[in-house]
Amino acid sequence: MNKIQTTVAVTLLSLIPGMALSAGNATEGYNKSTLCHACHGATGMSTQAIYPKLGGQQQDYLSKTLRDFRDGDRQNAIMNGFSANLSDADIEDIAAWYASQQGLTEIKDK
Amino acid sequence: MNKIQTTVAVTLLSLIPGMALSAGNATEGYNKSTLCHACHGATGMSTQAIYPKLGGQQQDYLSKTLRDFRDGDRQNAIMNGFSANLSDADIEDIAAWYASQQGLTEIKDK
Repeated sequence: MNKIQTTVAVTLLSLIPGMALSAGNATEGYNKSTLCHACHGATGMSTQAIYPKLGGQQQDYLSKTLRDFRDGDRQNAIMNGFSANLSDADIEDIAAWYASQQGLTEIKDK
Repeated sequence: MNKIQTTVAVTLLSLIPGMALSAGNATEGYNKSTLCHACHGATGMSTQAIYPKLGGQQQDYLSKTLRDFRDGDRQNAIMNGFSANLSDADIEDIAAWYASQQGLTEIKDK
């Protein structure tokens, strides 16, 4: 995708309320995130205080974090291992899934 | 605070519904978090995709993250600088403030 195509695509996406501008397919991300569910929950509502909630988090922050873990720019024994074999597309999809969730809302409403 | 006092305090706090078990004073944390507001928002609703939302995040995760940045266990030029002079108490207070917020709920409800 060249710059003009990217600009057009981003502009079109920005017209859809509530839709994230970043790449990634949330449904694919759900399927690819099963390893994440044990600690972070299927919808990003971690139940352990030391594991961050991911539901509704900024998509770009999520994808950067996963890339940093995968590439060794951020050190964590668990996350470095789980992210080691993720492709850029996998990361974008997983980030799209968790960013699309309303995990924190669900908890707060209970 | 010795171990018995801590146990008693945690037990009492656990009787108050919705109140976090971790240490830290949220009101103090608000006052101490003014430097954080530019990027993360006063209630933890960052508006920039690259800055993580903090509102409603796990308190223990927030305090660990700030300690890691302060102590150099996690590298980020901005966060290492901002956290350099925080005491453990400052960190617990700031974590308590952001954990007590419902930033993601506010955004999702709009």
